[in-house]
Order: sequence, then C-alpha cells, then structure tokens
Amino acid sequence: MSKTTIFRTQVLFGDCDPAGIVFFPNFLKWMDASSLEFFLQNGVPPWRELEKTTGILGTPLLEINTKFRRSATYGDNLEVHTSVTEWRAKVFMHLHQLYRREANGELTLLCEGTETRAFCQRLPEGGIKAVAVPEDIKALCS
Amino acid sequence: MSKTTIFRTQVLFGDCDPAGIVFFPNFLKWMDASSLEFFLQNGVPPWRELEKTTGILGTPLLEINTKFRRSATYGDNLEVHTSVTEWRAKVFMHLHQLYRREANGELTLLCEGTETRAFCQRLPEGGIKAVAVPEDIKALCS
Amino acid sequence: MSKTTIFRTQVLFGDCDPAGIVFFPNFLKWMDASSLEFFLQNGVPPWRELEKTTGILGTPLLEINTKFRRSATYGDNLEVHTSVTEWRAKVFMHLHQLYRREANGELTLLCEGTETRAFCQRLPEGGIKAVAVPEDIKALCS
Amino acid sequence: MSKTTIFRTQVLFGDCDPAGIVFFPNFLKWMDASSLEFFLQNGVPPWRELEKTTGILGTPLLEINTKFRRSATYGDNLEVHTSVTEWRAKVFMHLHQLYRREANGELTLLCEGTETRAFCQRLPEGGIKAVAVPEDIKALCS
Repeated sequence: MSKTTIFRTQVLFGDCDPAGIVFFPNFLKWMDASSLEFFLQNGVPPWRELEKTTGILGTPLLEINTKFRRSATYGDNLEVHTSVTEWRAKVFMHLHQLYRREANGELTLLCEGTETRAFCQRLPEGGIKAVAVPEDIKALCS
Repeated sequence: MSKTTIFRTQVLFGDCDPAGIVFFPNFLKWMDASSLEFFLQNGVPPWRELEKTTGILGTPLLEINTKFRRSATYGDNLEVHTSVTEWRAKVFMHLHQLYRREANGELTLLCEGTETRAFCQRLPEGGIKAVAVPEDIKALCS
Repeated sequence: MSKTTIFRTQVLFGDCDPAGIVFFPNFLKWMDASSLEFFLQNGVPPWRELEKTTGILGTPLLEINTKFRRSATYGDNLEVHTSVTEWRAKVFMHLHQLYRREANGELTLLCEGTETRAFCQRLPEGGIKAVAVPEDIKALCS
Repeated sequence: MSKTTIFRTQVLFGDCDPAGIVFFPNFLKWMDASSLEFFLQNGVPPWRELEKTTGILGTPLLEINTKFRRSATYGDNLEVHTSVTEWRAKVFMHLHQLYRREANGELTLLCEGTETRAFCQRLPEGGIKAVAVPEDIKALCS
C-alpha cells in the first residue's frame, strides 16, 4: 500500500465532445497527471530531472483498465485520488479514483482506473526499456 | 462476431510527449475514432444524424481495458482494426487492435483495447441514459 | 474596456511535446477557457444554459493573433488575464495575457493573444451564424 | 517563395467541441503538422534526427495569426496547403491555407494561418534559443 495523493483540475470547454460531456481520453490524461503528482508529492523529482541523474524518463503505462460510471461537463471540479496498490519487481499498480466535487462539498465517483506501470530508461539505439522499481523511490512512496 | 473495419491515421508531433512517444490517451482517441468508423463503414449514419431520427447521440464507453506493447512516434502510420466481439441486450464489446504499418508493409501490434459500450440517449432533464442495442444497427454490423 | 478576470491552470505532462515544452495549441486552449471564465465571472450563464434561453451557443473565434515570448513546461503554474478591449456591433475583441507564476510570486509573461469573437446561434439547417452582441451581456461585462 | 506542400487529415469526433464543430486549437495543431510535413517533403530529416546532428530541435512558433472563415465537423476531409512566404536571417514566415475537400472534389477554404517561426537549439542550462536559418535547409525548400 501507499499514501494517497490528490490531483485537482477543472473541466474545460475544449475537454468536451459534441455530446457535451468530457471526451473520455481526457479522464486518462488526468489520471496520468495524478500519477506524476503522486511521485512529486512523495518527494520524487520531476522526470526531466530524474532522467539526468538516473536515466529514468518516467513510468510508461503497460496496461490500464478504466470503468466509467458518470459523465462530467465543463465547469465541473474534479479530483483524482491516487495510490499504489502493489509494488512488484519490475512493475507497480496504481489505483485512480476520479471524483466530481459537488457544490455541497460531496464527492461523486465518476470513473476508476487501474494501471500497471514500469519505470523506463531510454535505450542508446532508440526506444525505451523497463528497469526494476528503484528502492529509494519505493521507500519515499510507502 | 462482426465484420472488421480499419481506421488509418498518422502520428503527429503534437500527439507525442516529452519522452518523444505517443501520449497514451491518444491511442484511446484513435480507438474511439475507429469505433465510429466501424459503424459508418457498416452503413450507420453519423451520430449527429442518428440523434435527429432516434435520439441516440452515440455509444459512450462504460469500460475500456487497454494493453500497451510498443510505443510509437511522430510520422508513424497507424491502423486500428476494429470488430464487435459480442452483442448483449444493452451493451456490446469492441476489440481494437492498433498496428504500425512498417516501411516493408508488415504490421506491428502496438496496443489492444477491449471496450464495453452502450447506445445512449440524451435525457430531457440533462445527462444521458443507455438504451437497448437497436436491432437494425446490429443487423447492419453483423 | 472591461473588467479583467483570471483563469488559472497547471501545465500537465501530456500538454508538452517532444521538445519538452508546452505544445503551443494548448496555450490557445487555455485562452479559450479564460474567455469562457471571463463571461462566467461576470455573471453570464454557461453556454449550455444560454443556448436554451437565447439560442446562443458560445462565442466562436473569427481571428486570433498570438505572440509567443517564452516557453513553459509541466508543473508550471499559469494564469491567463483576460479582458474585452473593444465591443463592436457584431464582434468583440479579447486580450489574453498568459503568465507563469514563479516560485517567488512574480509573474513572467509567456504569450499574448488578441482575439476577435462573435456571439453565434445554431441555424436550423445546420451550421452557425453570428448575431449582434447582446446588450445585457455587454452591460454585465463592462 | 517556396514549394507548396499538402498535409491531409480527417476530423475526428474527439476533435469537436460541444457546439459540434472543430475545437479551434486543433486547426493550429494541423497547421503545425503541415509545417513539419513541409520540411519532410522537401527532404529535411525529422526533428529527432536533426537534433542529433545539428542540435536543432524544431521550429518553435514566435507568432501566429489565424483567420477562421468556416467551421468543420467530424468526418470532414481536410487539407492544409503550406508554403514559406519569406526567409529572413533568423526567422521565416509560413502561410497555411486549410481547406475542406468536398464530396464533389472542390476545396472550401476554412481558415488561414500566417506563422513566424525560428529554428531553435536546446541550451545546456535548459530552455531553447533561436539560431540562423540553416542555408542547406533553405536551399532544399526553395
């Protein structure tokens, strides 16, 4: 298990589609932002700095399973609550719960994402490869 | 089962992130485009016309499970091969296989998405609701 | 002239391109969001409500001139300061000044946008048309 | 003056906003893609290769002036016709004319963009700086 961090954003007009609701890939964009926010809030440097010292360029996705329960529209205030539910040797699992903060202060669950991610380095010949989860990063986030 | 249709696109510079590879939500945007293309190629009108005659505004996603195997970068030519693997009473399942068309003509599988979608109508009071899969649409696509 | 409103956002990883900086069309997306925010903060209802009562679906752009001075990257805190610099019969001019809020509290100007927009209604036969700037909206914003 | 190149794309559902029309920053994304296409079709290597040999990471925008005449919607086939209208010492000017290819084969002008761009290198301390237009690139494109 891990700490849980919160990423907040507001739905913009340009995030919505002709049905007037959030175009769903944007929910995944915000889950991705919340994953980065998780590491930053736990004291891990931004990827562009980490790459200089460790060669690690981020945590590309291997798999994501997302369930959509309710839609959202522009002006809605969203929160993504993010934790790591499992650390394995080469991958880790994120749980993202995306809520709308209602006018009365309550949270309404809109969608949930379960991700498998790996820390990756750039290969000299181009492309990227997964490396073991760094112990110091794991310690910071646990 | 159903026919399989193909949606083609090219990766643009603006589709890629600081790691130099496709920002993954774009893969889901192209799967979404391929779902629409599936219905159009099977003779279903675009959503904006269907809404006028049937009230159906599209097929919002209920769930998507996506596995990423290889990355892509700008200039790559992509193909999404899409079929319906199951029709249920109120939902249907899409399989999207997203390939890169290599210079030698071969296809390299980059990622796969399995979607659950429902045909939806707009509610008079706002919001949307799922309706039964229209028999005529099912017949066109089978 | 008009009041000046402020729209705040944070640059996400997915807003940046392979050069590691904001992909510039996103600056225009945030100026667009700031235009909507301008009307909301001045008491104009969101477009989806305004369309029900007046048929006006928003204020599509006729022209935008944008000057880019400095780049931004993910994690940067941005502010768009927006005003109306001129109201004409059928169009109005927006000035957007987009700043980065630095760690020391100072504002650094990143880019500026000058827009010409018109209030538009949907045509029965499809498409949209410009209408005169509504006097009540102009009064709210002046 | 220069050669004129053509970039083709199709409007996707996810490119459109709640008004059912292309969200305007996407027009600029396609103009950007057409700028890259211009250099590729004239024999300039993709930015990621050019950066390895010359340090040049691309041609960031300094200014863009865009006029919107007609809207577009999903399913529309678009073409961006791009040329360089002027080469100066440190900057160059692009003209982008974005058309819809109608069913009868005719082209309808939707919007026009005039851009000022500079070739840029990454600075060792972070950030980027403009360099003189490389003579070999200018020769290829003229």
